[in-house]
Amino acid sequence: MRRIGKQTIAFDRPPRILSFAAVAGKKEAEGPLAMDFDQTFADTRLETDSWEQAEAQLQKEALGLAIDKSALKPEDIDLVFSGDLLNQCISSVFGLRDFNIPFLGQYGACSTMAQSLMMAAIMVESGAARVAASLTSSHFCSAERQFRMPLEYGGQRTPTAQWTATASGCAIVGNWGEIKIRHALAGRIVDLGIQDGANMGAAMAPAAADSYYQFFQDTGTKPYDYDAIFTGDLGYVGSGLFTKLLAEESIDVGRNYRDCGLMIFDRETQDVHAGASGCGCSASVLCGHVLKNLAKGTYKNVLFASTGALMSPTSQQQGETVPGVAHIVHLSIT
Amino acid sequence: MRRIGKQTIAFDRPPRILSFAAVAGKKEAEGPLAMDFDQTFADTRLETDSWEQAEAQLQKEALGLAIDKSALKPEDIDLVFSGDLLNQCISSVFGLRDFNIPFLGQYGACSTMAQSLMMAAIMVESGAARVAASLTSSHFCSAERQFRMPLEYGGQRTPTAQWTATASGCAIVGNWGEIKIRHALAGRIVDLGIQDGANMGAAMAPAAADSYYQFFQDTGTKPYDYDAIFTGDLGYVGSGLFTKLLAEESIDVGRNYRDCGLMIFDRETQDVHAGASGCGCSASVLCGHVLKNLAKGTYKNVLFASTGALMSPTSQQQGETVPGVAHIVHLSIT
Repeated sequence: MRRIGKQTIAFDRPPRILSFAAVAGKKEAEGPLAMDFDQTFADTRLETDSWEQAEAQLQKEALGLAIDKSALKPEDIDLVFSGDLLNQCISSVFGLRDFNIPFLGQYGACSTMAQSLMMAAIMVESGAARVAASLTSSHFCSAERQFRMPLEYGGQRTPTAQWTATASGCAIVGNWGEIKIRHALAGRIVDLGIQDGANMGAAMAPAAADSYYQFFQDTGTKPYDYDAIFTGDLGYVGSGLFTKLLAEESIDVGRNYRDCGLMIFDRETQDVHAGASGCGCSASVLCGHVLKNLAKGTYKNVLFASTGALMSPTSQQQGETVPGVAHIVHLSIT
Repeated sequence: MRRIGKQTIAFDRPPRILSFAAVAGKKEAEGPLAMDFDQTFADTRLETDSWEQAEAQLQKEALGLAIDKSALKPEDIDLVFSGDLLNQCISSVFGLRDFNIPFLGQYGACSTMAQSLMMAAIMVESGAARVAASLTSSHFCSAERQFRMPLEYGGQRTPTAQWTATASGCAIVGNWGEIKIRHALAGRIVDLGIQDGANMGAAMAPAAADSYYQFFQDTGTKPYDYDAIFTGDLGYVGSGLFTKLLAEESIDVGRNYRDCGLMIFDRETQDVHAGASGCGCSASVLCGHVLKNLAKGTYKNVLFASTGALMSPTSQQQGETVPGVAHIVHLSIT
């Protein structure tokens, strides 16, 4: 692989996504992408004792399904890249513990899926791994407990708030399969001073615009060169800002642009305010919808970005801003 | 690069550590490695408003010093790999925010330094980055608040407890310099069922033994083939277990073995119970002591492992075990 332009990595022998799987919860199963998930769970606890264990179980299910579909065994996977939103990434640790695959924990908040996929791709082309898995998860209930209020409190949510998806997505990367990973871009930390942790779309939009702007510069391409360009979970507020910020740079993302945070739920009927969020949002939309449509040929050439709001309850309480980050992966079947 | 044996990555064109820096706090400045640090701070807050900001400042200082020593500018660094112990890795985020370097957050608890260094090395040999930085930090006060009790409470510490180092270390990897990164191994999550979060040495020792056992198998080498082999922060309890576990596999680590958690403080006089811990412990011992001695030629060939206890206060409260993980990097000047 080699670097092109300022920030982009070009894969010379593009690694392939050889299998993928997405799992989701009850509310997601009632949404527009219901048919895209490999499995959905009506029980929010997934028959475990806690929401945290349930989230770990989501990762276990997603990785297990992706491994089954690949016809590989866990021991054939050289490295697994995973992370999540919980303190000290415990969903990943406890979800992956029994697989015995060498583990490299990733943390990019909701940008973790694109980050992990990029890492897996670099490992495979470089020879550091023959096969590498990338996955992440989020769970509405564990995230509310972690970042906001006890669920029992029934706190009122602001209009800009987003609903954390209960979902996990896993993509396994190797040297065979139809879907190629052609380019990747690791984003910079971008901080325009948003302090409202309930307006993460606005906090992440500048990072998404920064990464996409740089990607188009580096590759000399435009949004219309792709069948679709995705952002992770900017939601209604963030997507509008993203479109506007790129328009100011004379980049029209237009009809080709979709945000995973606006795809997984129906905002009209599902009461999710500004849309969905969480690592599992972009992960399950990627591994449910996007990769499925690439495999079917509905999409031939897409850009997928996950977007992360880099904050903690402590940083919020201390009056810190919410910096954002966005990583991009270019996928094609041509 | 290529894979050898079951888990080891061999670098064919070994990436080099082109500069490094270590910074530490007051207690560390009173310890045996005082002269190894590039800078120490008598003020635990580093003139910031909170311990969390102080920890972010430690990363800023370490990266800034390492960049200065390299004669590069921040914009010459293509990727930075960093993580820390705080919820959602905020020390890394706020420490690195102003550098404008594309950021890939890592989480491996106290194993983060070896993990980040391994990532940086893979990026450089593969061409994904021309220059990549790796760093991590910990701070006694922010870690106590995060994982244990308010400092003001003055909680009694158990004999197996370790003292989180207030420190940060940064290594910058590129294609020039004397110190070569020759091999790396990413560890598996190993869980022998330790539940006591105040006995992390015991929780991590099996992971350290597992990774070292596999490394020696994969490379066909023995501990005495190296000038020294290091573990991250097993402390007094964990180091003993590590030695014993490897002895059971007929591997004698003997006189060549040192644990960073037993190097940074003087257990006789500094009241740290079982030794030091924290991401910053192995990071500052690596970037202060180990790399300095490689550069001087005192060491020619060493194995460096960081070891992580994968737990959170929530997983502890829910009665979960403390799985461990250990990653290894092989460094030499020959």
